[in-house]
Amino acid sequence: MNGVRVAGVGLTRFGSYPGRTGRDLFAEAALAAREDAGVPREEIEHLNYGNFMGAFAERQGHQGPLMAEAAGLSCPATRYEEACASSGVAAREAVKSIRSGERDVMLVGGMERMTNLDTAGATEALAVAADELYEVRAGITFPGAYALMARAYFERYGGSREDLAHVAAKNHRHAVDNEYAQYQREIDVEEALDSPPVADPLHLFDACPITDGASALVLVSDEYAEERDLDAPVAITGTGQGGDKMALQDREYLARTPAATKAAEEAYADAGRGPDEIEVAEVHDCFTVAEVMAIESLGFYEPGEGIGAARRGETTVGGDLPINLSGGLKAKGHPVGATGGSQLVEMTRLLRGDHPNSDVVSDARVGLTHNAGGTVASAVVHVLEVAA
Amino acid sequence: MNGVRVAGVGLTRFGSYPGRTGRDLFAEAALAAREDAGVPREEIEHLNYGNFMGAFAERQGHQGPLMAEAAGLSCPATRYEEACASSGVAAREAVKSIRSGERDVMLVGGMERMTNLDTAGATEALAVAADELYEVRAGITFPGAYALMARAYFERYGGSREDLAHVAAKNHRHAVDNEYAQYQREIDVEEALDSPPVADPLHLFDACPITDGASALVLVSDEYAEERDLDAPVAITGTGQGGDKMALQDREYLARTPAATKAAEEAYADAGRGPDEIEVAEVHDCFTVAEVMAIESLGFYEPGEGIGAARRGETTVGGDLPINLSGGLKAKGHPVGATGGSQLVEMTRLLRGDHPNSDVVSDARVGLTHNAGGTVASAVVHVLEVAA
Repeated sequence: MNGVRVAGVGLTRFGSYPGRTGRDLFAEAALAAREDAGVPREEIEHLNYGNFMGAFAERQGHQGPLMAEAAGLSCPATRYEEACASSGVAAREAVKSIRSGERDVMLVGGMERMTNLDTAGATEALAVAADELYEVRAGITFPGAYALMARAYFERYGGSREDLAHVAAKNHRHAVDNEYAQYQREIDVEEALDSPPVADPLHLFDACPITDGASALVLVSDEYAEERDLDAPVAITGTGQGGDKMALQDREYLARTPAATKAAEEAYADAGRGPDEIEVAEVHDCFTVAEVMAIESLGFYEPGEGIGAARRGETTVGGDLPINLSGGLKAKGHPVGATGGSQLVEMTRLLRGDHPNSDVVSDARVGLTHNAGGTVASAVVHVLEVAA
Repeated sequence: MNGVRVAGVGLTRFGSYPGRTGRDLFAEAALAAREDAGVPREEIEHLNYGNFMGAFAERQGHQGPLMAEAAGLSCPATRYEEACASSGVAAREAVKSIRSGERDVMLVGGMERMTNLDTAGATEALAVAADELYEVRAGITFPGAYALMARAYFERYGGSREDLAHVAAKNHRHAVDNEYAQYQREIDVEEALDSPPVADPLHLFDACPITDGASALVLVSDEYAEERDLDAPVAITGTGQGGDKMALQDREYLARTPAATKAAEEAYADAGRGPDEIEVAEVHDCFTVAEVMAIESLGFYEPGEGIGAARRGETTVGGDLPINLSGGLKAKGHPVGATGGSQLVEMTRLLRGDHPNSDVVSDARVGLTHNAGGTVASAVVHVLEVAA
């Protein structure tokens, strides 16, 4: 099996770009990734691309060939859609293609434009990732769904809105120096608690923002990296995917996300690592409570123990396991189709030492990314390592 | 490399199902495929699923986990979107997963609901597969785009509306005995010529209909088929994918589809076959002229020679290379996300001898499927063979 290296990474700054098209955003990220990699465009064999709501937000489907063209490539392209895990899945399939020997050089990434919709429109578009028949028609959108999960969590394990506010404050603090973050500003716990309610017990600062942006990575085989003498110190050593019932009503648990556990178990086995070996992680905190359930599902905390992690300072600077040093979806932003790729970009930067927060984890050699779709009806986990 | 067998196939009849949901349609096809395969649901490791316009037509994205659940599976699932080639791409990636040894048993398929939109709505939804910025805003929808291609073809190579009408009449004739076809009725050349104009030179009977439907296949490794003693005589021996510029204006040719040529060359090389060894083919005839360009791009005819093939009787019963014995998209119907999978289902039935038209090609051992996205900005080709 061929090993997989991250040869280059690129991002747009996450934010609001009313004057730019999706292809323009993706081209910026793709060009940055290619330049970072030092790989000529002709050698890229395939694009694996993630997008969620292009058909709604830009009336643009069939984005595979469109984005290949925007990135200056003449190779074929494939679009993956797995709700908010779209580019996580795209990256996973690229890892498998390179491992199998089929490909040596691939471009991977994603893009989403959301701010051209108003808040109601974006909420409606996001709800397309829930079960239309049994959830959406009953009035559920994602803030409501995650509020149900938070309530179930509090009821079963305890915890409070204040615990969640610590997650928000932590991730905003992490984003301050991240030049790609939508919100490079701190908020304190009081400010999070006092923000307006969205769906009880979740308030505005429990939710990630609506965001435009793009992410891209050049992935190559070990062999190609060696032949071309590329500076590609970070390897993707584990990949896993899990699924669950789509609608919350059909789940065994509301306060746990077993799809993430399945994905993590597969990724750990694949990498030959365990959760105790992970030194830094980017997890899918579309809502603060999602980070709590993620760090439990990934095996970092027992069920019921994750809720206090941010409050206790364990998942921030100086803690044992810094989570979302990029700022997370919460503060960095969540352009849905770009997010999975963005997590891999941030983890690569953290591990190779050129992230503004790299000094927080200067000795770290093993990181993890966790990208989830919907209310974690799908999840993708990757393990990244500094190659020996 | 592990070989890939088709262990079972399933379809809904293509048509109009105002009272049924997408999940219901896919479940029917998936159940049929599982029963045909005789593979227990627990052994299916992953679903690769194609859908194009679910976000529009049913306000339902994230269909991967939803359709896995509908099919009674608890494995993860991935949705592929490549416009009208969505399930072709899904199948191709499944073939690669099994070959690489990663998986032994996969469900593959697709679904589309379109008739719940009116004709204008469906045309608008389909246009999401074109370039929104440079084609759709200029007023182009797919009938117009293919009309431009037909005009360019006539201008460069000659040919007439009557030649195209022969394609329509042929495919309708093929569909008469196909119990899954939307239109099991013959039309004659005069009727096609007299049908109302849609976009000159294309008339109504040059276009495929708007269709609901689903397709599914169980794909397994040779090894698994042997171990379980499955009756799976048809193998997928070649797969290829090609891409092109999205917008017609950026193409070198309007009257050729080089993405299909690239896909075919890759699939031929992969299977160790050439175009002269193909004995039967299902090609993407969303419009009659698309079949003409397909049989040229696939290497069956020189450019300019494909236009007369149906008129000369070469691509029908008694001809050298029967094309679209299922009825094709034209008469069998074109539920976009299901079409690539449906072509593989039909080819499997033709080769293993249980298709109503199998007697037309009773000695055939090698077949091809060609699935295209948009104006062939993407194309997927598979070679199928009766295993020795």
